[in-house]
Amino acid sequence: MKTYSPGLHFIGDIEAENVAPMFDAKACKTLIDALITKHGLNKVGEVYHSFDNAGFTAAICLTESHISVHTWPEYGRVTFDVFLSNYENNNDGKGEDIFNEISAYFSAITVAKNILRR
Amino acid sequence: MKTYSPGLHFIGDIEAENVAPMFDAKACKTLIDALITKHGLNKVGEVYHSFDNAGFTAAICLTESHISVHTWPEYGRVTFDVFLSNYENNNDGKGEDIFNEISAYFSAITVAKNILRR
Repeated sequence: MKTYSPGLHFIGDIEAENVAPMFDAKACKTLIDALITKHGLNKVGEVYHSFDNAGFTAAICLTESHISVHTWPEYGRVTFDVFLSNYENNNDGKGEDIFNEISAYFSAITVAKNILRR
Repeated sequence: MKTYSPGLHFIGDIEAENVAPMFDAKACKTLIDALITKHGLNKVGEVYHSFDNAGFTAAICLTESHISVHTWPEYGRVTFDVFLSNYENNNDGKGEDIFNEISAYFSAITVAKNILRR
């Protein structure tokens, strides 16, 4: 029997000056899909919802749990999280890479990073 | 201008003996929809994915951010989170109530609760 190991939950709060990517849900989807492919994760569903003249909110369900992104261009902020379970494999490094890639994508000036071992 | 106040993020890890609800995505959706209505939140999209002979994973996107639920009946565990922004209203109490309702719904014997002020 495999051991119960729900994995690491990375939770980030970004501040950035370039708010253009915070309006563009489609470009964010391209990034997330590329990261899912890069790390061999399995997407089982997704939501990308754009608000009128504002940011977007996204949640991507994975066999390994989820990724979420909420953008706030009116404040130059992005809140996001990456939670990958370790049931099939140890995904700790993958979660960290996805966290860093999303931070870089939004050209974060500061990122508050919280990591929860679950 | 409204102030930036992304809100509270409640993160829970449940242990329970009755695993039947962990197989039933449809019943969980009924609960979540009722909680969204109860608190006047706004759903903008959702994913409920059931794994074969196993648990389910769900992510519900809200104007106020998201709720996620991942069940592990093989271990009697549920990982979930509730993140409600305070942009339009202070939703701290609503997040706490939803957290408690989900814990009760799964007949949690223990719940590890983490709260992040974002």
